[in-house]
Amino acid sequence: MQTDKRLIDAAQRAGQHLADRDTPFIFDCWYVAGFSEDFDRTPRSRTVLGRSLVFYRTEAGEAVALSDRCVHRSFPLSRSRLDRDTIVCGYHGLRFDSRGQCIEVPSQAGNCPSGIGVRAYRLREQGPLIWIWMGDGEPAVDLPIGPWLGSEQWPGSNQYHYLPASYVSLHENLLDLTHLSFLHAGTFGTPDFAAAPYSLELDETKGNFKLVRTVSPTRLPRVWAEPLGLTGIESVRKTTSEFIAPSAHLVSGHFYALSDASNPPNTRIYTAHLPTPETATTTHYFIHHARNFATQDTHVTQFMHEQLSAAFIEDIEGLTALEKLVSMTPPSERFEISFSADRAAVAMRRWLKKTATGAKES
Amino acid sequence: MQTDKRLIDAAQRAGQHLADRDTPFIFDCWYVAGFSEDFDRTPRSRTVLGRSLVFYRTEAGEAVALSDRCVHRSFPLSRSRLDRDTIVCGYHGLRFDSRGQCIEVPSQAGNCPSGIGVRAYRLREQGPLIWIWMGDGEPAVDLPIGPWLGSEQWPGSNQYHYLPASYVSLHENLLDLTHLSFLHAGTFGTPDFAAAPYSLELDETKGNFKLVRTVSPTRLPRVWAEPLGLTGIESVRKTTSEFIAPSAHLVSGHFYALSDASNPPNTRIYTAHLPTPETATTTHYFIHHARNFATQDTHVTQFMHEQLSAAFIEDIEGLTALEKLVSMTPPSERFEISFSADRAAVAMRRWLKKTATGAKES
Amino acid sequence: MQTDKRLIDAAQRAGQHLADRDTPFIFDCWYVAGFSEDFDRTPRSRTVLGRSLVFYRTEAGEAVALSDRCVHRSFPLSRSRLDRDTIVCGYHGLRFDSRGQCIEVPSQAGNCPSGIGVRAYRLREQGPLIWIWMGDGEPAVDLPIGPWLGSEQWPGSNQYHYLPASYVSLHENLLDLTHLSFLHAGTFGTPDFAAAPYSLELDETKGNFKLVRTVSPTRLPRVWAEPLGLTGIESVRKTTSEFIAPSAHLVSGHFYALSDASNPPNTRIYTAHLPTPETATTTHYFIHHARNFATQDTHVTQFMHEQLSAAFIEDIEGLTALEKLVSMTPPSERFEISFSADRAAVAMRRWLKKTATGAKES
Repeated sequence: MQTDKRLIDAAQRAGQHLADRDTPFIFDCWYVAGFSEDFDRTPRSRTVLGRSLVFYRTEAGEAVALSDRCVHRSFPLSRSRLDRDTIVCGYHGLRFDSRGQCIEVPSQAGNCPSGIGVRAYRLREQGPLIWIWMGDGEPAVDLPIGPWLGSEQWPGSNQYHYLPASYVSLHENLLDLTHLSFLHAGTFGTPDFAAAPYSLELDETKGNFKLVRTVSPTRLPRVWAEPLGLTGIESVRKTTSEFIAPSAHLVSGHFYALSDASNPPNTRIYTAHLPTPETATTTHYFIHHARNFATQDTHVTQFMHEQLSAAFIEDIEGLTALEKLVSMTPPSERFEISFSADRAAVAMRRWLKKTATGAKES
Repeated sequence: MQTDKRLIDAAQRAGQHLADRDTPFIFDCWYVAGFSEDFDRTPRSRTVLGRSLVFYRTEAGEAVALSDRCVHRSFPLSRSRLDRDTIVCGYHGLRFDSRGQCIEVPSQAGNCPSGIGVRAYRLREQGPLIWIWMGDGEPAVDLPIGPWLGSEQWPGSNQYHYLPASYVSLHENLLDLTHLSFLHAGTFGTPDFAAAPYSLELDETKGNFKLVRTVSPTRLPRVWAEPLGLTGIESVRKTTSEFIAPSAHLVSGHFYALSDASNPPNTRIYTAHLPTPETATTTHYFIHHARNFATQDTHVTQFMHEQLSAAFIEDIEGLTALEKLVSMTPPSERFEISFSADRAAVAMRRWLKKTATGAKES
Repeated sequence: MQTDKRLIDAAQRAGQHLADRDTPFIFDCWYVAGFSEDFDRTPRSRTVLGRSLVFYRTEAGEAVALSDRCVHRSFPLSRSRLDRDTIVCGYHGLRFDSRGQCIEVPSQAGNCPSGIGVRAYRLREQGPLIWIWMGDGEPAVDLPIGPWLGSEQWPGSNQYHYLPASYVSLHENLLDLTHLSFLHAGTFGTPDFAAAPYSLELDETKGNFKLVRTVSPTRLPRVWAEPLGLTGIESVRKTTSEFIAPSAHLVSGHFYALSDASNPPNTRIYTAHLPTPETATTTHYFIHHARNFATQDTHVTQFMHEQLSAAFIEDIEGLTALEKLVSMTPPSERFEISFSADRAAVAMRRWLKKTATGAKES
């Protein structure tokens, strides 16, 4: 037995229109560069979309991102020191201001040539996140997720993982709830979830892909039942998973007692999954957890953080194993059979491919 | 001084007809997939001839080998769980039977599409070994070594080494007894062995290459003298080294007291060297030791195992160093000068190259 | 802000004429193969200019360098044993004399074929150093540095570092004194040094590039002040940095009290920087420290060795980081803006490129 040759051929033809690890990055997008606390008065390096960057903050606290490569002899500015708001190259002392302009070349003593600098990237700080614009022009779009981030009504926590897999695989994982009963059988994947009905809202023009799944009645997994006081109570489990941008996927959970179904409370649990490609096959995986209830209860924050972390580590281990297996499979033997449950993920990958390829041609 | 330019040119021309690490694999052959004990109710991964496989046993004990890559999203089935005789993908729960056919897609609830599956490989269990057929068609040849394997008359032991070198180099090492006095000077390479006369039986049609070397009188190395009670006794040392297939080389030792030469005992010591290529430059090196005397004596089994292991580790270290040096040598500067003692190995490598290249063209 | 497009284009055009990690090696040159103490009766391997070599000494003490690859089956001779002045391959016992000629093939019993051997490289021992000629013909040039090496008037010490960076970057680092105040701010880079005047002697015909910098009056860093008894004394600091060959850069320090300026003492401190490329991006970095004063004082030797080591490790860490960043930068995005302080380094790299490319064409 193996898959029918015609099915393989069809899968490979269809695959040409879907983004994967070989698809170019989409530069015209806000990506998370780091958490707010990653930026301070110590220069740090991070590679984003294949480009080596250095991050720091000015004395006034403004976040700065510059190309890490000194234009003189390619020394990493991240191995350099800050002098007030400027960064002084650790090799020959070239001084760059926070906009990347070279304002001093010590060997030229007072005669700094003009027109020299390292690229500065536009940043925006939004609550716990610092976003970066990697595109060449002015930012053409808004930040992908909303103003609730970091507000007092939405207490939360941050999580970072280094993911040795393509960000496309992560997005596909996030738009797919059918894996919960299998990959997360031990954490939040209750058995009735995979087969439950769902509705899709797929907008291939805007690049917005939403999946809504409601299970009712059900018993909630511990991670949600405990904070909401719904342990052992017949409940409604409604989850919205939404691809918003190459850099953002928002999961919104609405869980309440079945007895409150006619007038459900306004409690929400958000998990923002914020993948930033490092290279084609490695990803900075930022996560921000938040909720709009029990806002003063740090035990709830801690408990939800720990419970969800365990589940996301299952995704990371699975995607890492998958990436490794794909890398060992000759390209000519790669194919993926898709099912109707993959409709949202396939639409998302088709949009990513079209957008990345179009962006590349411009 | 360096090798004469004309000799180098001639060596490089001759080398084009000899198999090496750049020669394609020979798929139409039974290879050892693992020892019997490697197959149980825990799915395990192993790469054979460049292909990622998953192994397990059915409840009835039948060994199963499938392509490790789930056809849906390339998740490794080896990270999955068994449910009776089926394997259930750890990502989205696709269920495959032991012939590789997909028989359930949970998200399709009762409507499993037909024609989908992972490749199943034909296996044969023979005593301590499980063989795999990697070719596309039906097995066209028999298992390379005989029914004595695992029988009560032939007690023995298993040994596995991961060899970071080409399987061709290992076969060449095995068909060559002149290295014993040097690489194995400290173990079983007695000084008189390298220069002793030998006879060859080289059949380039069938791919069978045999080397018989007799040293008499001699003192046996400890590994053989002790179990046979020949310590300090003038003995005959007769060794047959036979390349049987790309996956099998059998060494047969016949050692007896010189005083018994007119009517030698029927004692034999077999070592089956069973290389299975993982990649072009890495090899699963399976070894099975056996003998037809002292069949109830587990001390003998243990002693011979330990003594021979030490010698084979010398081969492994040597071949690993050789492979590393070759990888650092630019292809244009690679050449090998052969001597008449290399006749068997050269004939074997010529056959491998011809067979592999022919197989590739078909 | 980023560097002006026209400046980048001009820098990339100019860069095509400058040696870097992608420039072929220059073979017609004496390189340091090792320190004298690296050669003894134990065969050792080292890769020089991409070629794997084995080193040893004959019984009479003569240093030997041979190709490490046995011509029979590519076994590393460095895993072999010496027998008087010959090296006996650890695999099949081929015996090579110290000129590389194969003089015994054990399996051929007394009938060693002629014209077979491994390449022997010409060596010259000079005090603490052993030089190797990697070129194809007879050595066309003299040893790059002088007979003072190892003499009693010039006591000194040796230092070896494995540098994971191009030897070109190291030479550029050595011909550039403007980095001292930054990369060596904590060791010998006093603040007044980077901006001090200097004179250049650049001979692009002979490939000799010299930079002389004098700072006066100044306070010497501890490494020189203490041994010379000039701590806290107004002094003259005169340093000559000279690129002599692809394998040698000599730094000569002349430091004395300002009050002796009319009749300065003849004290000199030499540091010979002796880079030998291993591969395009890795370098054997040999250093020899010497001085012509306090010749019996081993404390001075020890003190200067330790102080200078600390500074050179700063160079090594910096160049390693630089090399890693360059390797992550796509070639199309690499460029280097040069300033007038880079004049010596740029002339040197232009000469290296011209010489390497010319050598390659011949």
